[in-house]
Amino acid sequence: MSEKEFVKDITNIETDFAQWFTDIVIKADLCDYSDVKGFIAYKPYGYAIWENIQKYEDAEFKKRGVQNIALPMLMPEHYLTTEKEHVEGFAPEVAWVTQGGGKELEERLYIRPTSEPIFCRMFAKWLKSWRELPLKYNQWCNVLRWEKETRPILRSREFYWQEGHTIHATEEEARAMTLEMLDVYADTIENLLAIPVLKGQKTNLEKFAGAVDTYTVETLMHDGRAIQAGTSHYLGQNFTKPFGVKFQNKDGKEEYAYHTSWGSSTRLIGAMIMAHGDNRGLKLPPKVAPIQVVIVPIQQKKEGVLDKANEIYNSLSEKFRAKLDDREQYSPGYKFNDWEMRGVPIRVEMGPRDIENGKCVLVRRDTLEKIEISLDEIAPTVEKLLSEIQTNMYDMCLNTVHEKTTVAHNMEEFEQNLKDNQGFIKAMWCGNDECEDHIHEVTGAKSRCIPFEGEAVDNKCVVCGKEAKHLVIWARQY
Amino acid sequence: MSEKEFVKDITNIETDFAQWFTDIVIKADLCDYSDVKGFIAYKPYGYAIWENIQKYEDAEFKKRGVQNIALPMLMPEHYLTTEKEHVEGFAPEVAWVTQGGGKELEERLYIRPTSEPIFCRMFAKWLKSWRELPLKYNQWCNVLRWEKETRPILRSREFYWQEGHTIHATEEEARAMTLEMLDVYADTIENLLAIPVLKGQKTNLEKFAGAVDTYTVETLMHDGRAIQAGTSHYLGQNFTKPFGVKFQNKDGKEEYAYHTSWGSSTRLIGAMIMAHGDNRGLKLPPKVAPIQVVIVPIQQKKEGVLDKANEIYNSLSEKFRAKLDDREQYSPGYKFNDWEMRGVPIRVEMGPRDIENGKCVLVRRDTLEKIEISLDEIAPTVEKLLSEIQTNMYDMCLNTVHEKTTVAHNMEEFEQNLKDNQGFIKAMWCGNDECEDHIHEVTGAKSRCIPFEGEAVDNKCVVCGKEAKHLVIWARQY
Repeated sequence: MSEKEFVKDITNIETDFAQWFTDIVIKADLCDYSDVKGFIAYKPYGYAIWENIQKYEDAEFKKRGVQNIALPMLMPEHYLTTEKEHVEGFAPEVAWVTQGGGKELEERLYIRPTSEPIFCRMFAKWLKSWRELPLKYNQWCNVLRWEKETRPILRSREFYWQEGHTIHATEEEARAMTLEMLDVYADTIENLLAIPVLKGQKTNLEKFAGAVDTYTVETLMHDGRAIQAGTSHYLGQNFTKPFGVKFQNKDGKEEYAYHTSWGSSTRLIGAMIMAHGDNRGLKLPPKVAPIQVVIVPIQQKKEGVLDKANEIYNSLSEKFRAKLDDREQYSPGYKFNDWEMRGVPIRVEMGPRDIENGKCVLVRRDTLEKIEISLDEIAPTVEKLLSEIQTNMYDMCLNTVHEKTTVAHNMEEFEQNLKDNQGFIKAMWCGNDECEDHIHEVTGAKSRCIPFEGEAVDNKCVVCGKEAKHLVIWARQY
Repeated sequence: MSEKEFVKDITNIETDFAQWFTDIVIKADLCDYSDVKGFIAYKPYGYAIWENIQKYEDAEFKKRGVQNIALPMLMPEHYLTTEKEHVEGFAPEVAWVTQGGGKELEERLYIRPTSEPIFCRMFAKWLKSWRELPLKYNQWCNVLRWEKETRPILRSREFYWQEGHTIHATEEEARAMTLEMLDVYADTIENLLAIPVLKGQKTNLEKFAGAVDTYTVETLMHDGRAIQAGTSHYLGQNFTKPFGVKFQNKDGKEEYAYHTSWGSSTRLIGAMIMAHGDNRGLKLPPKVAPIQVVIVPIQQKKEGVLDKANEIYNSLSEKFRAKLDDREQYSPGYKFNDWEMRGVPIRVEMGPRDIENGKCVLVRRDTLEKIEISLDEIAPTVEKLLSEIQTNMYDMCLNTVHEKTTVAHNMEEFEQNLKDNQGFIKAMWCGNDECEDHIHEVTGAKSRCIPFEGEAVDNKCVVCGKEAKHLVIWARQY
């Protein structure tokens, strides 16, 4: 298969970004559809990315004293209806188990879309005194939300995530925890996934159903649409009161605990694909890539080629996630395209003449640059390149964010900017839900957040012209 | 709280073993009940044990080229009914999702009790040629079986497990894989959990619903009842045919793949508790213990005690999973009992006088032996002791198995042995389901397996007296 034919299978990234995404997900063997709408299968290459994200985040959680637990995936109906905003937010998208063991159930059970109710129910059983606080728990699990529109990885009905839930003796401590965990997400996304994040607070309309305050890390994709990549909620006593999560404080008085929850999911994989990919396919940041360096022997049937390739593979595997592609049925050209499409950060090409000269060629996935080096230098060069690629991919994304961030002083500018550029739009807001709704109706963009950093760009609301309260970053979203 | 009162909370292990088990699960903070029957919550201490088991097994799987994937937890009803024996085995114990997103579903979906159907459905999409074989996949996930009788950890409706599914080009290769994975389970249970296993093949009545052959690793508990701790199935083409998992073989002909599946679950934790525990509570094998060594300072308010305890804690944490118990509200005596109950392999006691003399006392959980050592020797001594405790716990279990394994030549002996001794009973079997059923009806014991090792103890069936075909090991079970 020639390169031309190969690339033909993938929709052009500038023509139809959404279709490009779906093509990549399937062609790069990340995921596949099952027979039930909204339920996808993660294949080894896709799941390995998730395992690398889990490993990184899990270690960060544990450093902060968070412990893993596992709570039931089914909850009784009355849990859902205990917190008023929560039921309004989630009831329309839950799946119900109504029969078990051959019988109709007396009370319907719902599959968790998120687990605040059962965490609080168990906290209520477990918590007695201030001495036990804080409790910092997390679970890695599957959750289910019956979305109408589905899209592999980005919006599937079942997805994988972690949800952390902590309870504290004071509001101050809980609020600090909420922001600390937001920073863990920002670190993961920037350092592991090489995507710059915008940190801020969600508006009232966009916050989690049941939260006092929701904080978010927002990312910008190749086409200028945003993805919410992780959220951290200060829940106050909204759940702990109705579920009775109380403790004796130091003065011997009963008090309700202060609660946080924070989640990040397999959507991170989607963000990573859409932030970095190009017309050749996936582009994986070295730190999260299941294969960091792939060796493609040329004329592999010639004496000594596979031996040398194996030798190099063995030495590289000691330090890196390496792979030797010695498939007989494909040409080197096919393999080059294949591994580029799968986003492997470095490709090593070596043929009989290279080996004779003690050399090989390294090809960077991020810049496609080819570098001829001596075989003796391969391990240190790969190490250096992986680090450079990681940094360069971050920088390339940061450039996109800068290019695609604009300011709007009125709705005309807002619409024009979106049309010209998509991206993040900075605009002032009076704080009223109506003005926020108006922007969504007219432009399709939603508020991403009230950013932690950034100065006022005007003193009037971009919609109503009244006094502005906040700078808000807006964008269309996935 | 005195030691006497403390132990009073736990049912005596000889009086009521089942109740002892439940007491330990709750008191040692492994798990707790939720509000839905058969659904339990894993607390940090219980879940950390599972994480250690996962880490060990996952590394062993990956060494064997097994890759992790993730498939949907919901399957359409017609998947369940595709394989005849499978539907008979599992239909009575599935839970049905009948409503989602506010609507009745057109086809009911069932929550996976095991995933052979969807693995085969996806294999059928993915497999084209013999060149891709074998495919060796595994998933770590939750499954649901609507059991009538439930018991925490051992028999809960939702539980956690891994299920490996592999497909191969030949029966021979698939059969070899089935046995290779059985050996991984045997290794995990013997080397990590310090429980000796009995390996063998399940009889026709006891094999997995849909398998050609099922192999098992069986373990014996403190009270002489057995627990099936892991199973590996050779499924032949039973699922691959109806689901269309076919490939082009080397001769260009279509063939159905040969399939294996193998699973181990959180029941392993139950087996570990029941094989090792005693009247003081849990006894955890060092390799799997979330805390391997706990430091309990004595008179911790005296100057220098906590400083020294912290110093020792810091040096031990570099090599071991260590904990310093500096809780102010409990006496050292309470803490001794508490950590014994939680099964921590080594306790370090150190008071002001010990510190003055440069000494401390180590207490082994397995033998309760106290060892006074110099503080300088603490790290190497702990290392040596952990290894000794691991071995000793295995040996203690092996003794129990030897003591509790008897031979029966007729049903009278069979019943008498069970009455006297519980345990494994070796008895010959003609191979007929009726004789096997008879034993279960009369004695409550079931066949554990036809063991891989072990010589005939008679030439006649223990039930009907006709010619014996197999030596079978029988036991009552959890």
